[in-house]
Amino acid sequence: MFKDKDFLLVDYVGKIKNTERVIDTTIEEEAKKADIHSEDKKYGPQLVILGEHRLIKGLEDALYNMNVDEEKEIEISPENAYGKRDPSKVKVVSLGELRKQGMTPYPGMPVRFSDGNFGIVKSVSGGRVYIDLNHPLAGETLVYKVKVVKHITETNEKIQALIDRWFPTSDKPGFELLNDSKVLKVRVPDKIFLLEDLQTRKLLLAREVINYVLEDFQVIYEETYTKQLLTR
Amino acid sequence: MFKDKDFLLVDYVGKIKNTERVIDTTIEEEAKKADIHSEDKKYGPQLVILGEHRLIKGLEDALYNMNVDEEKEIEISPENAYGKRDPSKVKVVSLGELRKQGMTPYPGMPVRFSDGNFGIVKSVSGGRVYIDLNHPLAGETLVYKVKVVKHITETNEKIQALIDRWFPTSDKPGFELLNDSKVLKVRVPDKIFLLEDLQTRKLLLAREVINYVLEDFQVIYEETYTKQLLTR
Repeated sequence: MFKDKDFLLVDYVGKIKNTERVIDTTIEEEAKKADIHSEDKKYGPQLVILGEHRLIKGLEDALYNMNVDEEKEIEISPENAYGKRDPSKVKVVSLGELRKQGMTPYPGMPVRFSDGNFGIVKSVSGGRVYIDLNHPLAGETLVYKVKVVKHITETNEKIQALIDRWFPTSDKPGFELLNDSKVLKVRVPDKIFLLEDLQTRKLLLAREVINYVLEDFQVIYEETYTKQLLTR
Repeated sequence: MFKDKDFLLVDYVGKIKNTERVIDTTIEEEAKKADIHSEDKKYGPQLVILGEHRLIKGLEDALYNMNVDEEKEIEISPENAYGKRDPSKVKVVSLGELRKQGMTPYPGMPVRFSDGNFGIVKSVSGGRVYIDLNHPLAGETLVYKVKVVKHITETNEKIQALIDRWFPTSDKPGFELLNDSKVLKVRVPDKIFLLEDLQTRKLLLAREVINYVLEDFQVIYEETYTKQLLTR
């Protein structure tokens, strides 16, 4: 039994109930088997902070009632996953219009609209193109096999788990907890000083540290430039 | 008489000798008079670090032999300004070719080539377009009226001048000089945490501090996140 703000490491395999197609998993082997393996994704038990709503509702809800090392198979209704299908979200667009924009639509083709909406071409017939703006998994009942691998309770481990979330590569910030002054000092390694979204990662890491681990602390980032570094 | 790495604040007005057209100035009134005023530019005496080669050679060279409050008019040959004109840098391109790329060239039109080179259309005749890749000021003798407004010698003032260079807006980092530990601590204000090129500015500021002011110091940037900041 867990509660809000608990840190869990979780493994799961999620499938569409009808087709048994695997749609999401933390386990590299399973991703390969299902042909959805991505080089960019970091496999292995995933950090879940309860109440954060990063997972679909049905999966997160189930975790509250589990225990460490417990494995469960849960069925999740569309309402608790990616929503019901909304038939009004199927738009009809003229084939000529799309061709003018340089597109040659075919069933299954992804389309991004100028308002940022995203759809999939369902069919093309009689000069009309049917584009479905529903989430591709809307209307699907899902089945997740899920296991709580670890319950993280130590402050230092929680901080490290959040650092791993935002800095999954090998160049990770180190940290030092100064309890007396209520400061978490985070040292950014020079190798990532010019990382494109470094500032955003720092902001999000600080937000989660303060929201979930050290409510009344300050997070201070330190970046040190030396002559050696600058002449390298 | 000044030497390498000296910090000067300098005012100048630069003109093309032949036409007397003003091409560059630190003085807002002069920029307005010459119709080259830019809202983005920060007017007022400019920081010059001798030996940095940020100014054209003829202008920087002249500064070494001046004194504070001295004003001088200097004539600068093309070789010590923007170089001689190179006739081989005038390219002939077919009008049809440019039209295919959606351009309608006219004399004075700036053209950017796919290799990054930049040119100005000189003339269009008989289906041929002459594009000059020389710097627009190549071949020109320049006349600069220049004044050394201040010689900055205090370490703290030098650091402040470099901060002003890289953070010209009102949200400036503060700093603290820790001489015992040979550290310059620079505190970045939270208002600019998400400034697009913050990391580049931090790098360049640190480089100049170490190169020109505090050779054997470390520059440590501090960025502090608080709950108040994150919930704002």
